[in-house]
Amino acid sequence: MRIVAALGGNALLRRGEKPDASVQAANVVRAVAALAPLAEEHELVLTHGNGPQVGVLALQSASDPQLTTPYPFDVLGAQTQGMIGYWLLQALQNTLPGRQVAAIINQTLVSAADPAFGNPTKFIGEVYEEQRAKELAEQRGWTVKADGAGWRRVVGSPRPQRVVETRLIRLLLGSGAVVVCAGGGGVPVIRDETGRLSGVEAVVDKDLTTSVLAEALDADVLMILTDVPHVLRRYGQPDEEPVLRATPASLQAEDFAAGSMGPKVDAACRFVEVTGDMAAIGRMEDAVAILEGRAGTIITPRGKYGGPGDLSPRH
Amino acid sequence: MRIVAALGGNALLRRGEKPDASVQAANVVRAVAALAPLAEEHELVLTHGNGPQVGVLALQSASDPQLTTPYPFDVLGAQTQGMIGYWLLQALQNTLPGRQVAAIINQTLVSAADPAFGNPTKFIGEVYEEQRAKELAEQRGWTVKADGAGWRRVVGSPRPQRVVETRLIRLLLGSGAVVVCAGGGGVPVIRDETGRLSGVEAVVDKDLTTSVLAEALDADVLMILTDVPHVLRRYGQPDEEPVLRATPASLQAEDFAAGSMGPKVDAACRFVEVTGDMAAIGRMEDAVAILEGRAGTIITPRGKYGGPGDLSPRH
Repeated sequence: MRIVAALGGNALLRRGEKPDASVQAANVVRAVAALAPLAEEHELVLTHGNGPQVGVLALQSASDPQLTTPYPFDVLGAQTQGMIGYWLLQALQNTLPGRQVAAIINQTLVSAADPAFGNPTKFIGEVYEEQRAKELAEQRGWTVKADGAGWRRVVGSPRPQRVVETRLIRLLLGSGAVVVCAGGGGVPVIRDETGRLSGVEAVVDKDLTTSVLAEALDADVLMILTDVPHVLRRYGQPDEEPVLRATPASLQAEDFAAGSMGPKVDAACRFVEVTGDMAAIGRMEDAVAILEGRAGTIITPRGKYGGPGDLSPRH
Repeated sequence: MRIVAALGGNALLRRGEKPDASVQAANVVRAVAALAPLAEEHELVLTHGNGPQVGVLALQSASDPQLTTPYPFDVLGAQTQGMIGYWLLQALQNTLPGRQVAAIINQTLVSAADPAFGNPTKFIGEVYEEQRAKELAEQRGWTVKADGAGWRRVVGSPRPQRVVETRLIRLLLGSGAVVVCAGGGGVPVIRDETGRLSGVEAVVDKDLTTSVLAEALDADVLMILTDVPHVLRRYGQPDEEPVLRATPASLQAEDFAAGSMGPKVDAACRFVEVTGDMAAIGRMEDAVAILEGRAGTIITPRGKYGGPGDLSPRH
């Protein structure tokens, strides 16, 4: 089977942890211990988030007196692909000796006409006083918005259209390599009328990018791995309950936008709808159990059980 | 032909330039304009330096109050592989439409027993007052040495033994991809007795790594591209003169250690001696002319002319 798995940036730097290299590298080793068994029997593409990591580098860059202008988000995203890609590469090589591992730098194509550019909503970087935020907006062409008591920069989160290096990833998979890519959703780029790519100041949702990639690679399974065991129905209410099995239609009838689960549910449903294959959302530590149908929230097309893994309904 | 070319970090961020992203990205576009013609008719592996870039990120990391300990040099090197790799990837894709380009994160194996670890000589990062330098050495396990009036950290520069991802690079080349790798000489790693890789605080010479890689890939030509047109004999003396053609023996009879040319000459000679193939040192802008034997310093085994390109002696 061909598995495409997305690893949350928060799984690599947990809330409250110092962003020290040693802390993150140890988290990566733990993540890879959970994921490597998937690669022993299957083709595996691993993508990863970079939210906390890009935040750290953005602050460093914004306070760097050597720079006239802080590094833009495409460049910062590429830096995190290098850093996190290195940790994942090394941990995978150490866990899967004899297997080729390719950690590649990659870009994700978005549309310059995406409405997200006209209505940016993703808060990024530091919190400023209102006046300072407005000065920076003037100086640097930023859009800034109030975020609680402070003001912050906002950028658009356009929909990913395609991972530019899809053909390369397919080639690597076909040759037996485990592939690490699409870090932070991929470096966002647009293509002009002459075909040239250029970076844009935007943030691409890594789960949506992973879904688009999984589709393009004809993956059998899309796994979205995070720090919760299941999608929760009626989250935070007295009668909340875990969703063990679902169809895209059953999930889309509910509202998951409140938590951070919304984009994950969207990405998983999109993959199942477009391909008819299986998606799952669950804990990183449960990766093997999820594939066997024993953990996580498993999403299949209506009425389809018995796909990859043991998908018979559970008690 | 299979060409392995090394691009100097100073070619991507020239002395006196601000390390802004826009400046570096424009330099990369210029570099790629000079190099892309090589890829039109040949297999091409492109490596690059990262000296100025890793210096910028090291300073950012050292002044980051979010971190208990600044990022170590393996992690900083990986960040620069992501950043510079992204710029090169995009510029190559824009210049060579229809060609696959792979920018990979990679590691370079060094020996834990390398004498360079016992006698570190490479100055890195900030200049401190003596007392502060000694405090930091105590706190962080650094070795510090006087560098002129100030004190700085020193790390070892062990000899590269092998690019860990050599097999992957060969696979990519064989499939027709242009490969960007070995940024900053590769992230330095050691292998313990159980076979596990781990990063080390060291700096690997990117020209030596490129030479080792070119040999392992059975390259026909190793090109070391920098900002001077030729190796200079008797550099800085009244009778200095450019070296147009040389053999390893003729170069090794002279002393190039004074400038930054020493490691480049070593790396080029090593490749020619071990493989019997051609190496060249010259300006990035002259890449095509160097391959045609019309520019640069061209190094071939004793008495061998008429190898790749036009290698007949020039006037």
